Parts: sequence; C-alpha cells; structure tokens
Amino acid sequence: MKKSLIALAVLAASGAAMAQSSVSIYGIADVWVGKSTFKDNIGGGATFKESTTEMGSGGWDTSRIGFRGTEDLGGGLKANFQIETKIAIDSPAPTSLGDRTAYIGLAGGFGEVQLGKNWTAYDDVWGAHNNNFDSAFTARPSAFGYTDNPNNTIKYISPSFGGFTGAVSYSLGEDKAVAGDESSNVFALNVAYNNGPISVAFAHQKEKVGEDGTKVGLDAEGLVGEFIGVTLADLDPDSKLTNNQISGSYDLGVAKLLATYNKAKLSVLGGDLKSNEYTFGVEVPVAANISVGAGYGQAKLKIDGENVAKAKSFGFAAYYSLSKRTTAYAGYSQTKVTFDGVTGSAKDTLYAVGVKHTF
Amino acid sequence: MKKSLIALAVLAASGAAMAQSSVSIYGIADVWVGKSTFKDNIGGGATFKESTTEMGSGGWDTSRIGFRGTEDLGGGLKANFQIETKIAIDSPAPTSLGDRTAYIGLAGGFGEVQLGKNWTAYDDVWGAHNNNFDSAFTARPSAFGYTDNPNNTIKYISPSFGGFTGAVSYSLGEDKAVAGDESSNVFALNVAYNNGPISVAFAHQKEKVGEDGTKVGLDAEGLVGEFIGVTLADLDPDSKLTNNQISGSYDLGVAKLLATYNKAKLSVLGGDLKSNEYTFGVEVPVAANISVGAGYGQAKLKIDGENVAKAKSFGFAAYYSLSKRTTAYAGYSQTKVTFDGVTGSAKDTLYAVGVKHTF
Amino acid sequence: MKKSLIALAVLAASGAAMAQSSVSIYGIADVWVGKSTFKDNIGGGATFKESTTEMGSGGWDTSRIGFRGTEDLGGGLKANFQIETKIAIDSPAPTSLGDRTAYIGLAGGFGEVQLGKNWTAYDDVWGAHNNNFDSAFTARPSAFGYTDNPNNTIKYISPSFGGFTGAVSYSLGEDKAVAGDESSNVFALNVAYNNGPISVAFAHQKEKVGEDGTKVGLDAEGLVGEFIGVTLADLDPDSKLTNNQISGSYDLGVAKLLATYNKAKLSVLGGDLKSNEYTFGVEVPVAANISVGAGYGQAKLKIDGENVAKAKSFGFAAYYSLSKRTTAYAGYSQTKVTFDGVTGSAKDTLYAVGVKHTF
Repeated sequence: MKKSLIALAVLAASGAAMAQSSVSIYGIADVWVGKSTFKDNIGGGATFKESTTEMGSGGWDTSRIGFRGTEDLGGGLKANFQIETKIAIDSPAPTSLGDRTAYIGLAGGFGEVQLGKNWTAYDDVWGAHNNNFDSAFTARPSAFGYTDNPNNTIKYISPSFGGFTGAVSYSLGEDKAVAGDESSNVFALNVAYNNGPISVAFAHQKEKVGEDGTKVGLDAEGLVGEFIGVTLADLDPDSKLTNNQISGSYDLGVAKLLATYNKAKLSVLGGDLKSNEYTFGVEVPVAANISVGAGYGQAKLKIDGENVAKAKSFGFAAYYSLSKRTTAYAGYSQTKVTFDGVTGSAKDTLYAVGVKHTF
Repeated sequence: MKKSLIALAVLAASGAAMAQSSVSIYGIADVWVGKSTFKDNIGGGATFKESTTEMGSGGWDTSRIGFRGTEDLGGGLKANFQIETKIAIDSPAPTSLGDRTAYIGLAGGFGEVQLGKNWTAYDDVWGAHNNNFDSAFTARPSAFGYTDNPNNTIKYISPSFGGFTGAVSYSLGEDKAVAGDESSNVFALNVAYNNGPISVAFAHQKEKVGEDGTKVGLDAEGLVGEFIGVTLADLDPDSKLTNNQISGSYDLGVAKLLATYNKAKLSVLGGDLKSNEYTFGVEVPVAANISVGAGYGQAKLKIDGENVAKAKSFGFAAYYSLSKRTTAYAGYSQTKVTFDGVTGSAKDTLYAVGVKHTF
Repeated sequence: MKKSLIALAVLAASGAAMAQSSVSIYGIADVWVGKSTFKDNIGGGATFKESTTEMGSGGWDTSRIGFRGTEDLGGGLKANFQIETKIAIDSPAPTSLGDRTAYIGLAGGFGEVQLGKNWTAYDDVWGAHNNNFDSAFTARPSAFGYTDNPNNTIKYISPSFGGFTGAVSYSLGEDKAVAGDESSNVFALNVAYNNGPISVAFAHQKEKVGEDGTKVGLDAEGLVGEFIGVTLADLDPDSKLTNNQISGSYDLGVAKLLATYNKAKLSVLGGDLKSNEYTFGVEVPVAANISVGAGYGQAKLKIDGENVAKAKSFGFAAYYSLSKRTTAYAGYSQTKVTFDGVTGSAKDTLYAVGVKHTF
C-alpha cells in the first residue's frame, strides 16, 4: 500500500502524465523498394512484359499494429486478448481493426482456447520451415492458396509435452441455410516437434469452397485459371479444398536445412485438381548479425491424374540486423509457370531491398 | 522539480523504453458462441425456419477499443477527449475510428459540455434499467429504433444535485438545404435520480426522419415493414420520430427489480404510427460473483389508433465473474411478432454462452 | 541494474498494470461549431444561397491520432517510425490507418531518410508562413491544389546547417505500364532558413497529373471548372502540375509579418493554365496566451497568357490558450471568385469558434 503510494507520487511528479494501462501496443513497420517484372509468352506469340519499380510493405514480415493484454485469473488461469491489424506502410488502405487477428483466450496448464478471428492451425505452421526466412523472397509456388485467418474461429493450442505441441482450429460456417458461396467452414490441425536443432511439423486443413473460388484464389492468383480450362463455374456447391503438409528443418550450426511437402486437392464438377508442392532451403549465418538464404520450390498440378501445369521457383535472401529491433534485408525471387502441351511460359521476378522495424 | 528528476531517472533506468503519454487505451473484447433461430409462418402456409450456429461479438457489451485522456486546466476546469471505436471480434469489418464516440469535453463544477460524435441524452439512460443486464438477452422489442450516436452533437451533462442528474444533447441537421434524407437533426434530454437502492430516469428524444427510413430501422428491422402496409414511400419529408421513456429499478438486496415504459411515435403520410413498449425484469445475485436475471418485454403498434402488430419477448441471463476484468455469461432470449388479422407469427430465438474481457 | 530493479518494483507495486512499450500515442482533437455560406450569381440571374450551421473537425489543426517510436541503433544512428491517421471528430468516417503518414526512418548526423507514405518536401513548408496561423481561416485561394502526402515516397531531410535546412522527396509512379490515370509521380524539394526572427523558405513540386484531374482538384475544387471551359477531357496523358513557392515571415516582437508567393502551372491539351498566387498576413500576440491574426490572399488564373479568373480572400483569426495542450479559437474567412468577361461572383464565407486539444 505504501509502495503503491510512492509509485503514484513518483508518477504524479513526472512532468508528463503517464497512461496506466493493461494494454500493450506492438507492431512491425516493414517497407521495401524494388523492381518486379512479369513476362508472358504462353501460347506463343509476342512476349508481354511489364516492369515496375515500386515501394512495398511487408517484404520480410507483414506490417502491422496490435493491442494485446493479459489478466491473471488466479489458479494458474489467464485471460488474454489480442487485436492485430494490417497496415500498408507504403500505401495505407481502408482498415478493418483486427483483420489479422482478434480474439479472447483463456489459458492455463491445459493450453489455451481462443475465440474470434484467428489464424488456422494449418497456417500456424505453414511457414515455419519455408526457405528464405518465410519472406516475400520465399520460393514456394502453390496452386490454390488457402484461407489463413477466417472469422468465427474456435482454436485450441496445447502446451508443450517434451517438445511436442499441437493445435486444432474450427471456423464456423455460419450461413448453412444459404447455398453455395457463404456456406464455408474451415477445419485445421497441426502437430509439431521442436527439440534442439530439430523442428518438424505436420498440418492439415479442410475447407468448404462452395462456388466461391475467390476463397482459394482460383480467380486471379495461383496456377489454375484460364489456361487449364477450369473456371469458377466448375466449382461444385460442395467443393472442398484440402491441404496436407509435412515440413521440417535441421540446424547444423554452420547452416540450417529446411524442407516442406504439401499436397493440395480441390474437387470441382467433373474431376479433381491435385497439386503436389515441395520446397528446399538453406540458411547460413555468415556473421553474428548476418544471415543468407537460398531456396527452391516446385508445384505440379494434375487434373484427374494428368499433368496440366508446373511452377518452379527459386530465390535468395539476406538480412543484416542493425539492432535488436531493426533489420535491413535484400532478396531476389523468380517463379516460372508452364502448361503441358502449351508453348511458352509466364515468369514473375522480384528483387528488393528493405528495412523492418519491430516496435 | 527534484522529484521529477528522480522519476525520470527511474524511468530511464528501466530496461524497456516506456511510452509517456497523456492517453489511456481501454476497451472490451466480448465474444460468444450460440445458436440463433428464425421461424416464420405469418400469413399461414409452410413455416420457414433458419437456424444458425454462430460466433458473435458483444453479447454482454459491445466490443470496442478506445483512447481517452484528460488535462487539468486549473481553476477546477478540465479538458477531456475520447475516441472510441467498435470492433467485431468474431469478424472484423471496415472501421471508422471514433464511430462509437469522438468528442472534446470541457468539464468543471457546472458539469461537462462535449462536442463531437456522441451518444444522445436519451440513449445515455435508455438501457439503464433494461432487464437481463442490458445485454443481447434483454427482452425489449421495439417498433422503430432510434438514432443512438449521431454526428455533430453538442451535449451538456449536469453534475449531481443530491442524486439528481440531467443531460441535454442536440445534433445539428447540417444539410438543411438538401430536402429529405439528409436534413435530420436529433434533440434529446434525460433526468435521472440515483440514491441508494432507488434509480429512476426519464428520457426524451425527437429526431427528423425525413424520407430516410433506414434511420429508424424501418426498412429491415423492427416490427413495421411489409406486413403492415407501411413502407419508406409513406415517410413524409417532415417525418419525425419521438421517443419518451420512463424507467427505474429498486434494489431489494436479495433481488433487483427493473422496469421501463417507452412511447414511440412516427408520423407518416396519411397517419401516425404509435408504439407502446414496456419491460419488466429481475436480477438476483446468487453468489458474490454470480448473478442471474429474467425479463419480459412487449411492444404494441397502432396506426391511427388501431392495433396492427404486437411483439412479445422474454429472456434469461446469468454471469459469472472470473476476475475483476473477465466475465463468463450465458443467456436465452425469444421474440415473437404477430399481426392483427393475420394468422401465424415470426419468432426469433437466441441462446449463447460467451466471455467478456475488459482492458 | 539495481536502479532497474527499483523501477520495476515501483511499477509492480502500482495498482494498475502498466504497459511498457516503445510506442508513443499522440494526437489532436479539434472541433468547431460555425456557419458556412455559399452565394453564387455568376453569369447573372438570381443569386443561389446556401447557409449551413455546422460542426466540423480540424478548424485549427487536422484532428488525428498517431503512433510513433524511436530506437537507438548506436553510432549516432536511430530508427524511427510513425503511423498517423486522420479522425473526423464531428463525423467519423471509414479509416485508413496511416493515411496521413506511415513511414520508417533512418536518422543520423547526415539527416534522415524516410520510406513510406509521407508529406512531400513542398508540403512540409507550404503552410509555414500562411496567415491566420495556417488554419481553416487562412486566406489563401489557389487554382489547382497539389498532392500533399503521396504513397510510395522516399524522402530525405537534412540536418540544420547554421539555420539552413533542406528536404527532397520523390514518390514513385508505380504503374508506368498503365497509360494515363495511374502513372503519376511526384518530385518535391524545399530549402528553408530559420534564424531568430527571420524565417524564409523556397519549395518546388512537380507531379504527373495524367488524365486524372481529381489529383489536382480540377473536378470540384479550386477555381478552374465549368466557368473557364477547361474540363478533365482537356488533360493531356502527360499533363504535369508544377508549383514553385517562396515564403517568409519576420517577427517584430509586437507583431509577426508573413507572406507567400506561389506560381502554379498546369499543362492541358491546347494550352497552359498558369496561376499566380500570393498572401499577406500579420499575427499579433495581444497577451501571453492570446494572439490575433489577419490575412489577405489572391490568385489570378491565366490561360495562354490571358486572364480568365481571379480569387480574393481575407480572414481573421484569434486563439486563447486555456493551457499547454488546450486552445480555444475563433475566426472568419471569405473567398470571392470572379471570371473575366462574366458578370457576378461566387462567395464562400465561414465563421466558427472551436477548441483544439493536443494529447
């Protein structure tokens, strides 16, 4: 009681008023300058080329600002909350507070249960063993994408059992009465093992796609699209997207080896799209505050067992820690897509230098 | 001066940098999981039924984040500011910072004057005596709704005179030159008396509706709509909505009794819509950190003195305080709407469990 | 180490948990109530008059909330970040976090380099010598406006060399492959000299307008528009807007004199629009916490050397500091626009009282 009075006196005496709060503010400001190029001569004919010198946000980690806090409930229990929002440092855009994550969690010896908008258990480990430090330079082509942080999510995260951890998430499909588009729900789980130099993870995610291909990037991104004859109209009202991934890394000290293997399956009217995707990488700490990495990734898309498209990607990245919270980085990545029985290819390249500041 | 230096030294010595600020961050994260059901057989025929298992935000109190601060101006005067924003924890949506309230206030012995976006004086006491803890389980059907936090508001809040307080708010109708939709303004006042176990309040609000029925929920919510033959087209350019409420509670110790009575009147082309609305409730503290409540509410809509529709609602709710800042809750509510001379009814039910965390 | 422990003990002992953070929150809440009137009898005929009693935000300074922080990188270097967002206190609107500014900066003896969304070097000194305290009452008509805080900006700010400072900014035109509208980029610089009572600044800005006149307010604001026969369709795909300003102030002690002179040039199909714009002002500190100001401004628009339109503006403003962080203010301004060879004029007037609170 007396100490408290002293503290208050000290606080009162300081020139500026001081906010007392159970809330922490944190975030990342990450901005880069670079050049992206897109070349396309699929189907033959003249090559289309577009090159852009640009500034971007989140080359190393997504720029964000967050609010979080914790309350001791006694008996080993805690109440947590987190509200985290994306910010495009280069070109701020309309904001939804909590669009990255917004949840209340109850934590204890049993682990933690979280309710709200949240990352799926699949997404939690998706990038853990990605090459090139899981950055914008990561070589990792994929056919469909997946829903990474759905609304209305219930998630359980286990404590660590001798290095083993697990998590399960389920995102409610709230509008079952509505056919098709809105009736999506997402189930995911992961199991991971981290012990000294070894890190391994398995992750699974199954989601209803309905007739809304945007949910899996079928419309504009990824491999599928105009060239393989599959369109949104081919999506079944009951279409499901399944991803299964196993990944791991081993730290040799002089270098860290990383690999991922993912199988994705999307059911459409009249057949199944399957994509086999793998990546390799190596990260080398060349000095106390400098690391360089290199990586390769490939995705192969089949329809009903027949090859239709392939994507190959490679990249390099390096970072230099200016301090505990500020890092300069540079990197290069390239992805090339070809279609079976079609001449030509499409190629995306990016090189960039940037700086990331954590607060 | 010396103390100040000590305080700064102490602060400088602490490992982490510490933000010195005149701003406090506060908020509520409230999320629930439950089931809502809508049944409708108005006009006879087959019953339409839709049931949704869902996660929601703000079952007990609206989830929000806010920034506020105060400055001593000397002479008993203070400058206050507050910027408070809604957050949908379950499904974050595009955000307008300050959409709940955003004002500057000058406070002193005379009370406080606030300028900005703000709750009306009617809204300030609207829920004070609502049953079931003024939550999503409150049994309180109403015909029209009202504007609760208009833009461009000037508000005066009195100090307490032996338990009596009052407030007046006026929200500027800024676009008088524009006919109809935009020319709304809102006037409201309240008088309240709080003394020991007794709490009583009177509140009044009058607002121009113009031809914009959305302002009073005429289009999609409330009782009126397709079944009573009143549509947006019936709104007079000079249509006004008036609400008058008297409400109170008495705390017996073993239980608290609550009641509200509200008269709402909406003028439309060719007649007046009047709604008489009342509620009753009881709240029982069954343990130091557990309370249960029950409530009933009814609204009766008349057009030119003739009954046209009736809504009846009842509900239960309970909370369990896990700590000072975290509360678990559960509740049930049901609202049934019937129309005079029309067979059948529409029924909304909700049951949910949730957790509210204040930060 | 010991001190740190004491600090932590003091902090731990205080009743409320205290967020330790490397982030500062700051902002301005500024709200006014006033009357704006628009009168128009250009071309003769009946006078159109519209008068609005209204509440507004940012009469003295734009209302905002911001987050910023700094990290010592050692060796005289610092990493800075800032994320600042506009808030309309009177009528909150959809928010883009960082819409005022969002950048990472690296600062040292060389000055500071900032990357992100940012104010141009022209804008940095644009208002430095505006009359009436660079407020909503500033008398300063202008023909075109300019882009004040573009996305994708690289900015360098020099240190002070005996009172001299300078800054350069370049905002990337990211979409060069797209013809016209999106292919804008902005280059700006300033040189300023501040020494005792003297303050002088030169500023230059050149920006591609493309066919998107909204970028320079050609569609709805400023002088040009329907009355001078120049429309968006007259914009060249390569249209450029150039602004060159010289401005200064001299503080006599009993009064401060201010002046600005700006030349703006906009190229359109078939000719050049040129605007010569100047302002004068005086600010008088009548008491320790009271200042009054008066100002006059004029803009003359020529097309291919011929006069086409003229705007004249004058205004008064005064502020009264209630405290270090809270200021009451009042002001009046009037702008009158006439077109050569056309009878009549358009006149905007505003008078308002307000309060500004800095936090």
